[in-house]
Amino acid sequence: MNKLEIIPLGGIGEFGMNCMGIRFGDEMIIVDAGMGFPEETPYGVDISIPNFDFLDDYADDLTALILTHGHEDHIGALPYFLKKFNLPVYASRFTLALAEKRLSEHKMLDDVLLHRVEANDVSEIGSFKIEYIHASHSLVDCFSLAIRTPVGTLIHTGDYKIDETPVIGKPYDLKTLKKYGDEGVLMLLADSTNATVAGRTPSERAVIPAFEEIFADAEGRIIVSTFASSLHRLQVVLDIAHAFDRRVCVLGRSMQKNFEIASDLGLLDIPHNTLIELGESRSLDDDQIVYLVTGSQGESRAALWNMASGRYKGLGIEKGDTVILSARIIPGNDRAISRLIGEIYKHGGNIIEEKRRLIHVSGHASQEDIKIMTETVRPKFVVPIHGEYRMLFRHKEFIKNHVEGYTDENIILIENGDVLELDGNAARIVAHNDIGKSFIDEAHLGEIDYEIIRERKKLGFSGLITMVVAVDRETKKLKSEPQITVQGVAGINPLNGLLQNARQSIAEIITETKRDKYQDKNFMAETLRVHLKRMIQQETGTKPVIVSTVVEV
Amino acid sequence: MNKLEIIPLGGIGEFGMNCMGIRFGDEMIIVDAGMGFPEETPYGVDISIPNFDFLDDYADDLTALILTHGHEDHIGALPYFLKKFNLPVYASRFTLALAEKRLSEHKMLDDVLLHRVEANDVSEIGSFKIEYIHASHSLVDCFSLAIRTPVGTLIHTGDYKIDETPVIGKPYDLKTLKKYGDEGVLMLLADSTNATVAGRTPSERAVIPAFEEIFADAEGRIIVSTFASSLHRLQVVLDIAHAFDRRVCVLGRSMQKNFEIASDLGLLDIPHNTLIELGESRSLDDDQIVYLVTGSQGESRAALWNMASGRYKGLGIEKGDTVILSARIIPGNDRAISRLIGEIYKHGGNIIEEKRRLIHVSGHASQEDIKIMTETVRPKFVVPIHGEYRMLFRHKEFIKNHVEGYTDENIILIENGDVLELDGNAARIVAHNDIGKSFIDEAHLGEIDYEIIRERKKLGFSGLITMVVAVDRETKKLKSEPQITVQGVAGINPLNGLLQNARQSIAEIITETKRDKYQDKNFMAETLRVHLKRMIQQETGTKPVIVSTVVEV
Repeated sequence: MNKLEIIPLGGIGEFGMNCMGIRFGDEMIIVDAGMGFPEETPYGVDISIPNFDFLDDYADDLTALILTHGHEDHIGALPYFLKKFNLPVYASRFTLALAEKRLSEHKMLDDVLLHRVEANDVSEIGSFKIEYIHASHSLVDCFSLAIRTPVGTLIHTGDYKIDETPVIGKPYDLKTLKKYGDEGVLMLLADSTNATVAGRTPSERAVIPAFEEIFADAEGRIIVSTFASSLHRLQVVLDIAHAFDRRVCVLGRSMQKNFEIASDLGLLDIPHNTLIELGESRSLDDDQIVYLVTGSQGESRAALWNMASGRYKGLGIEKGDTVILSARIIPGNDRAISRLIGEIYKHGGNIIEEKRRLIHVSGHASQEDIKIMTETVRPKFVVPIHGEYRMLFRHKEFIKNHVEGYTDENIILIENGDVLELDGNAARIVAHNDIGKSFIDEAHLGEIDYEIIRERKKLGFSGLITMVVAVDRETKKLKSEPQITVQGVAGINPLNGLLQNARQSIAEIITETKRDKYQDKNFMAETLRVHLKRMIQQETGTKPVIVSTVVEV
Repeated sequence: MNKLEIIPLGGIGEFGMNCMGIRFGDEMIIVDAGMGFPEETPYGVDISIPNFDFLDDYADDLTALILTHGHEDHIGALPYFLKKFNLPVYASRFTLALAEKRLSEHKMLDDVLLHRVEANDVSEIGSFKIEYIHASHSLVDCFSLAIRTPVGTLIHTGDYKIDETPVIGKPYDLKTLKKYGDEGVLMLLADSTNATVAGRTPSERAVIPAFEEIFADAEGRIIVSTFASSLHRLQVVLDIAHAFDRRVCVLGRSMQKNFEIASDLGLLDIPHNTLIELGESRSLDDDQIVYLVTGSQGESRAALWNMASGRYKGLGIEKGDTVILSARIIPGNDRAISRLIGEIYKHGGNIIEEKRRLIHVSGHASQEDIKIMTETVRPKFVVPIHGEYRMLFRHKEFIKNHVEGYTDENIILIENGDVLELDGNAARIVAHNDIGKSFIDEAHLGEIDYEIIRERKKLGFSGLITMVVAVDRETKKLKSEPQITVQGVAGINPLNGLLQNARQSIAEIITETKRDKYQDKNFMAETLRVHLKRMIQQETGTKPVIVSTVVEV
């Protein structure tokens, strides 16, 4: 009998790059193709994606790519994936709209097959029968997946929260999940992002009272910054602006684009006469306007940072402005956000932060939600996904300690590259592959080999010395003085004579060495490089990259 | 009449690098010489310090350097400062011991004059009379300063919390502060680090109950990680270990060194037979041992990270271990700490985090403490210091709204480089200097010019191409094929023929150009560089650094 294999390519033990292969026999579907946020940005890298080369061995088996929702950590690698494996894509209409935006940047729209599916649709893809289950999250049109396979049913939650009163659309469809639970679920693959957070995640509606209070108090302009994809939040701002007779001006490219997509799809309910263009907004009184802007993470090219430093299309933060930062701080952005807040204060703006008022709620299930999920689905096995190892581990611990019937035996922690084999009864990790990740330079829409990043790191860490010597092809004697240039190296300057000494020392070596030793030009260059390296290290203590070139004339 | 000038060199509008000049006539004292934690670490930088060049103009006026306490952000720049201006240093014995450690790394101990002072000592330094006031903080032997000047008294808090029950030593000496307050204080320069935090900062003693519970529950080994300078915390661990019949093994260089210093000075009360060496510790049962280790910030070279990854002197994290992270997360370290925690979980360790249990308290005054401080000193003016602009601003707002008698008029926000002029009645900013900062490579104890860092950034961001051509000195015609090397550049590989084309194109240019144009070798190199740059950019879209060398033979 054939067995089922679960093979995560990303998103397990890390934040971002969510991607999972599910294989039965010679068929394999992929769930999500997300990007990550690497620490290698100083080296010309914008995003990271799973290294899809791993799938080369399965190229003939791949049948479909299913997207659970439209966040970048679930669809951001889509163009790169489809360039390698042009599979049909299944997703909701909002997810597809966001995916199309990315695909069009890569000019790929005409070359891919996109299937729009709706909640409770079922796609039969070979041996897999996939039902799309309406899920609540911080954006809309999200799915959890019920995947019937020949060995049993899998539930893949995607990202979710259990929101009984979302601002837009229906509550999470727990009923359908429960139906699968009653039938019997083999494995639940569940979001762990907030597995360290106690209690329940508040509804998207929970921010309304604080927003109302802030709008009631504000006498000047209101500036709201949030993620452009957080449609519930955008709707809240529209509704409350309308209630307080303020008009809304949307600023920042991604915010405008998402607004356009969402209103085209009828996902946002825009009160009549609420939206306003920037030009028109300038003629309104301060208490008649809300600017809805990008840049809640302190991004230096986003609208909010530019406003705070007074450079956004003539718009600046001024005394009397109320700035609402309606988003969480993504780890790593603390310093930038603190600078942003300082800048806003400097210009006289008042800041409302998430820490101090309930103006933001998470899109992910907290511990009590995880309990509800597990008890609704009652799977034979639970596999925590989406999160750093810390979250996956705590997800497991929480279920072990708070949901009856779950032990170390049936909560399984896996890592990227593991092959988790399932028959109807047992689940075990049978193999591990090193998947790794690829780095992308988005300006050029291209992959950067890690070897290139390694070289950049070295250059950036300690700088560069180039040395050129020209020697006679026959005698191997110097034809002119060695030339040395220096970039980014500490401890070398025209005054301390180091370069002078280095040139002299290199010249001496060449003079003293028998020409037989230098028959090979590359060998000669390498010998001189090592000599210069030792000398520089001795004199300055540093180890710059040294490029040594020998020219034979 | 002469006026007093307050000139902050660092620590205002940023975290770290605390340093302030106080000048009257031709006399100037400096309070603290701290280092900072720059974001430029990928470029071979370890720490940042204020650019002391600004003080060159005052070199003859400088009379003394006063250190408030021994944290790196207050003394870390000491060697670099003293190399430029060899002033006498005034500090407490623990502060001096930590300072001596740094000075000895720089082999400067014999060349500097260190004055040990105690609480309530008064130093008369020219026109300044400075009383050292015992302050409570997360380490010991800390001072606030009362500085009598000809125009009035300044109170400089240093870092402080108002701890009425510290673990080591006496409570904050509010009585002396009040005495000055009663006499009349012209200006209070006060720590803003926690000015965004409501309520009062708990006493260092507040962590004891949680520690006791954790020790009572733990059946295996206990590993406590905290800052090596947090002496109160170290004492708590010693006491509770003793109470629970565990012995303490201290690991990690800075922890061992600080332990040694503190016990030499009699600052730690080490219960008999409590400390134990690593070797001996191995023979103890798991429930008889506490490891006190460095690395609470996930530093990759510290003891805890090495233990977590199983490489610290044969010691690894094992099932049954309880790891107590008794420190706050310094912004920017989130990812590293999350990885550390994941690694510990993976090896079976249990983690106690600050967020979940009261195992860490801040060393800085919260809002209610700030209120107590302000009301005790009742200064004419308040100047928030130590913190990013966000904290300084919130410090001001808090006092304005919660302490009677303070308004925009007498709470003054200053920036690094401002000259705040004081006579007995008025305070105003009369000038601003751009001070900037210097970057230090600690391995070589040397400064790195920002220009060098800028060059490293460029190299690191997009990589390097070197091109060498040898031409005839007379005819300016090529003597051999152009040589090109590539490091860290994306889009160039042996297969795509780009280098081949580039060499050819360069050769053609040289052939086609009249020799008159190339009389200047550097001009020729620059012309070829620009040509190659355009070509690479056109073909690959990237802009690597290009080093072009022309050799005339």
